[in-house]
Amino acid sequence: MSDHITLPKGFVAAGVRCGIKSTGEDLAIIAVEGGEVPAAVVLTRNQVFGAPIAWARSILPKGCGRLRAMVINSGCSNVCTGRKGLRDAESMALRAARKLGTVKEKVLVASTGVIGRRLPMDKVRAGIDDAAGALGADNDPAVVRAIMTTDTRAKSAVARAQIDGEEVTVAGIVKGAGMIAPSMATMIGVLTTDAKISPRALGKALRGAVAGSFNAITVDSDTSTSDTVAIFASGAAGNRSLGPRSEGWPVFVEAMKEVCGALAYAVVADGEGATKVIHAALRGAASDSDAEIAAKSIANSPLLKCAVNGGDPNWGRIVMALGKSEATVDPESLSVRIGGVCVFSGGRPRNFDVAKVEKHMAGHDVEIDADLGLGEGRFTALTCDLSHEYVTINADYHT
Amino acid sequence: MSDHITLPKGFVAAGVRCGIKSTGEDLAIIAVEGGEVPAAVVLTRNQVFGAPIAWARSILPKGCGRLRAMVINSGCSNVCTGRKGLRDAESMALRAARKLGTVKEKVLVASTGVIGRRLPMDKVRAGIDDAAGALGADNDPAVVRAIMTTDTRAKSAVARAQIDGEEVTVAGIVKGAGMIAPSMATMIGVLTTDAKISPRALGKALRGAVAGSFNAITVDSDTSTSDTVAIFASGAAGNRSLGPRSEGWPVFVEAMKEVCGALAYAVVADGEGATKVIHAALRGAASDSDAEIAAKSIANSPLLKCAVNGGDPNWGRIVMALGKSEATVDPESLSVRIGGVCVFSGGRPRNFDVAKVEKHMAGHDVEIDADLGLGEGRFTALTCDLSHEYVTINADYHT
Repeated sequence: MSDHITLPKGFVAAGVRCGIKSTGEDLAIIAVEGGEVPAAVVLTRNQVFGAPIAWARSILPKGCGRLRAMVINSGCSNVCTGRKGLRDAESMALRAARKLGTVKEKVLVASTGVIGRRLPMDKVRAGIDDAAGALGADNDPAVVRAIMTTDTRAKSAVARAQIDGEEVTVAGIVKGAGMIAPSMATMIGVLTTDAKISPRALGKALRGAVAGSFNAITVDSDTSTSDTVAIFASGAAGNRSLGPRSEGWPVFVEAMKEVCGALAYAVVADGEGATKVIHAALRGAASDSDAEIAAKSIANSPLLKCAVNGGDPNWGRIVMALGKSEATVDPESLSVRIGGVCVFSGGRPRNFDVAKVEKHMAGHDVEIDADLGLGEGRFTALTCDLSHEYVTINADYHT
Repeated sequence: MSDHITLPKGFVAAGVRCGIKSTGEDLAIIAVEGGEVPAAVVLTRNQVFGAPIAWARSILPKGCGRLRAMVINSGCSNVCTGRKGLRDAESMALRAARKLGTVKEKVLVASTGVIGRRLPMDKVRAGIDDAAGALGADNDPAVVRAIMTTDTRAKSAVARAQIDGEEVTVAGIVKGAGMIAPSMATMIGVLTTDAKISPRALGKALRGAVAGSFNAITVDSDTSTSDTVAIFASGAAGNRSLGPRSEGWPVFVEAMKEVCGALAYAVVADGEGATKVIHAALRGAASDSDAEIAAKSIANSPLLKCAVNGGDPNWGRIVMALGKSEATVDPESLSVRIGGVCVFSGGRPRNFDVAKVEKHMAGHDVEIDADLGLGEGRFTALTCDLSHEYVTINADYHT
């Protein structure tokens, strides 16, 4: 694969099979060559959260700091596993730390998979040893495969920027297909960059990029107990240290947004049962937060998602979803476009070219633009359609 | 049918076909014999609402008053129809008022069906004339059929109470199967009673009964633009006028709750694609409002609804749905039962009798009880499962 988290200078990674899942790779380590580097995380807001989330909060209480590596496993999320689960997460960090010559507090842990089961720690320890021994900068495709669960495809992205005359690279991988909802929506994403930047500035850039990407997507309005996005910055690119007042800051932020945006899009496109991606773009809201509420009300409407699955230009469900939201909506000042064609304005449906809109909706990306006509607030939410396959995946999956 | 809105003394009704829908009855009038009587309404909170809702707000600005009759049609909701739509709703009231010898301000109107189309007023006027001419107290089953859209069965309920030595009857009918969500969830419900009661007290009793019934159900988290529940009280039972301090008040309120509860259950059981009814009973919340938020978070989780469809005792999705809600949740103090069997407590899953829980989940009614262990707040939300049939109904339906 051409997009990989070892593309930025200074990173090594490896994915291995240790036997948590019935088939395939299920454990990966992503590490910095040399010592600790600035790192930042954004974690799930679900009040029920896994042991790895608790570990991340304990080593990065402010959401940023300096880290050496991250261990990720799939097949078991280590959620609802009590104190023993906490010790398991900690001992994963410790095992990797010893192999890498650092302390456990410098190793982030993330787990994804079934809830309520203990990790098979013998297998996990052996897997950490194997992965640590295999670390390389050769873009090992097993790294991405090792973090996948119900994902049907590997998801990665890369962006490059010129900062202080140096090429800075931002790369990322992500897993996630179901239980994807508005407050930290990826399950697990890892980004790397070779930019030189302080932990605090890195945290700020990450939160900014996540707000418009991972936190703007929804598959089913359900929020995972394990959502984690982490970034490591090796500083190997040679730029002057970045901060919000640096000349290169906007360029770096843009590269972060590009990678997070591409990964978030990939999660939605690979949403459980998804056949289409829906772009719900709100503008004209009384505030940005109203725009977010209204956009997510469209993106979470099962009726609208079914209509898009069926290719039906059902403007009524868009208008209904806007009206039921907590955002201020006035049908008289509202206008709605599907694929650029105005279907509703002035409180009434328009006579529109149905064939043209149906043709747009037959494509993979469906653009819904709503202008509330009340102010300057904007937000775009991404979601997928609701299909038979979603029900099949989630009704037939057994715990 | 044995349950009917003309069972309380003092009411007449008729359902007719006027040709709005392609087949079947599509217009009904429910009227009081004699003059105007106390009446109350609870209306949708959707900010996009139909012309009949606007009419109801204009004639009952406080939600209660004195009315003579209600005209209901199916096949066209008269929503997003502009000023002409408002005039159509008003002229429906006027036509019925003239036939009944009253003024238009004494006639409520409700419409359900497709959004964005004008009513075929020639047909509607002829239907009103026919229905007004056919009014009787003979429990005409065409009345319920005339208000149905995607409903697969007629839904009605009746309760009787002894007040001041007199038998008081409360009866109701309802329609609704999709676009059913937490803020006024029925689309259209009509209740009648022969109790003697003031408009204000009637409004209070109605709001109380709706809170725990129609506003506690959800099929798909989508809120209709036409939701209306109305009640008329003929006063023919002979009891002393009821108010919150009357001896008979608790009995009357209980009868109201019984009818609204039965109708709300019927809506969920007939939810689009529903094969099961899920009772999400929350207790131990920090407050009643927290309990409602938490119960509805379970009831609106597509993942949980799919799991119930598949008969899977997936406690993880219940815990996830609780944790993602805005209600305060602490996994350590939380316990969850399915069909009375404890599946989760003390932050961890229990070793439970899976066969016993699966047997419970194979039945029609699935009981999920969650105790947050934090306080005295309680709320029970009702929903149905999410099935392939829901997707079929809503993806294949075309505007």
